[in-house]
Amino acid sequence: MTELVLLGSGNVATHLFKAFLGSKNVRVKQVYNHRKESLSFFQDKCETTTSISDILEADVYVIALKDDVISQTAEALRNKDGLIVHTSGTAGLDALVFSKRKGVFYPLQTFSRSKEVNYCEIPFCLEANSSQDMDLLKQLAKEISGKHYEITSEQRRKIHLAAVFVCNFVNYMYTIGETICEQNGIPFEIFQPLIKETALKVQHTAPSKVQTGPAIRQDQKTINAHLEQLQSAENKQIYQLMTDAIQNFHGKKL
Amino acid sequence: MTELVLLGSGNVATHLFKAFLGSKNVRVKQVYNHRKESLSFFQDKCETTTSISDILEADVYVIALKDDVISQTAEALRNKDGLIVHTSGTAGLDALVFSKRKGVFYPLQTFSRSKEVNYCEIPFCLEANSSQDMDLLKQLAKEISGKHYEITSEQRRKIHLAAVFVCNFVNYMYTIGETICEQNGIPFEIFQPLIKETALKVQHTAPSKVQTGPAIRQDQKTINAHLEQLQSAENKQIYQLMTDAIQNFHGKKL
Repeated sequence: MTELVLLGSGNVATHLFKAFLGSKNVRVKQVYNHRKESLSFFQDKCETTTSISDILEADVYVIALKDDVISQTAEALRNKDGLIVHTSGTAGLDALVFSKRKGVFYPLQTFSRSKEVNYCEIPFCLEANSSQDMDLLKQLAKEISGKHYEITSEQRRKIHLAAVFVCNFVNYMYTIGETICEQNGIPFEIFQPLIKETALKVQHTAPSKVQTGPAIRQDQKTINAHLEQLQSAENKQIYQLMTDAIQNFHGKKL
Repeated sequence: MTELVLLGSGNVATHLFKAFLGSKNVRVKQVYNHRKESLSFFQDKCETTTSISDILEADVYVIALKDDVISQTAEALRNKDGLIVHTSGTAGLDALVFSKRKGVFYPLQTFSRSKEVNYCEIPFCLEANSSQDMDLLKQLAKEISGKHYEITSEQRRKIHLAAVFVCNFVNYMYTIGETICEQNGIPFEIFQPLIKETALKVQHTAPSKVQTGPAIRQDQKTINAHLEQLQSAENKQIYQLMTDAIQNFHGKKL
């Protein structure tokens, strides 16, 4: 049985905790957070503490806290023998400067507190400073997920950057659609199948191979009509920039 | 039995044809296209013709051709008694200027020739110039889809515009992710669960309610780090514009 201490009580910590509840070989022994009120969810499920000096001995310490407190938290655990990992997309392995055994256990997913996620489908980006500890992290990932990847700190930073495009900016494109619907008395649900299909298409095919729309068709008449219809100067700018980008990208390849 | 003539042999025509194959109450009687070689898929399945003067009598004529030939095709059918509809997102009902009975039967979906689509999930935007013909279009839509909406020509143009954002531009955001992966030796499949989850989130919640990422968190440190990492000037510009737009949109609401 691998024993874990979880430091943090935000979305990542909560989802990890729930996922490990279903595991036979890994047990979350204790959850730490400096604010007592943040621990209420965990209180009847395992030991909790608000004091970092009361942290128990464990095989792995998972720091699922904000990037800017990772180093100081790891420093407070400097005398522990277990493996210290953080779950950040941007902090390097070297953020754990005082730890002898260090690693990264980064789940690449968008977490909402309210919505359960299917952990089997979450890829874990793993990094460690020894092959034994990499094996330990793989074992942890396997307990709760179908997928894991060995990813360097540099690659992980690029993944975090790309995730902003494929998740955060995509969601804002959906939001522009929502706004256009609101302004024209159209129910947004009309777009739900299109949104789903657009995402499902790239589950098996590279997005660059399935680009559609007026930009790639060089359909300037439609592009002009769309630009004219857009009321917001900002949305016009987004439309023009994305259209140019699609044409530049696919022009280069033709 | 409602009898249909389909004019066109592109993605929309082909997918509609396949969908109606499974219907008990609607039969595609004939497929027209001016190029014989485009009709090969249909030839052993129903009557076909390359001559518009040989078009048979039917209850509904579905013009699934390019926008700029809709009017002239409808004109060639001016003596038909059946309902004439087109399937365009942008052409108005008035594109069918010579038709007595006219309508629009616009499936809101992204079609690839290679990938089958689940028609039950495709919303149809319907328009007609009489309530009887609207009922006829509703009956057609019900045969192959779970959803249909009465949508005016003006609303349909806005839907077509919004679809560029939620589908075409979204796919280009995925493409930027793909490029970053290629440049850094990261398998793109690592993003597939995130892409799927981002799309599934807005199946039940408005996108404006589930925005995440450095822009909405006002996390300027991460934003700067990301801008610095981006090699392409164009991608930098997209990152900055989308970040500003997210902050403007959510700033207004806060």
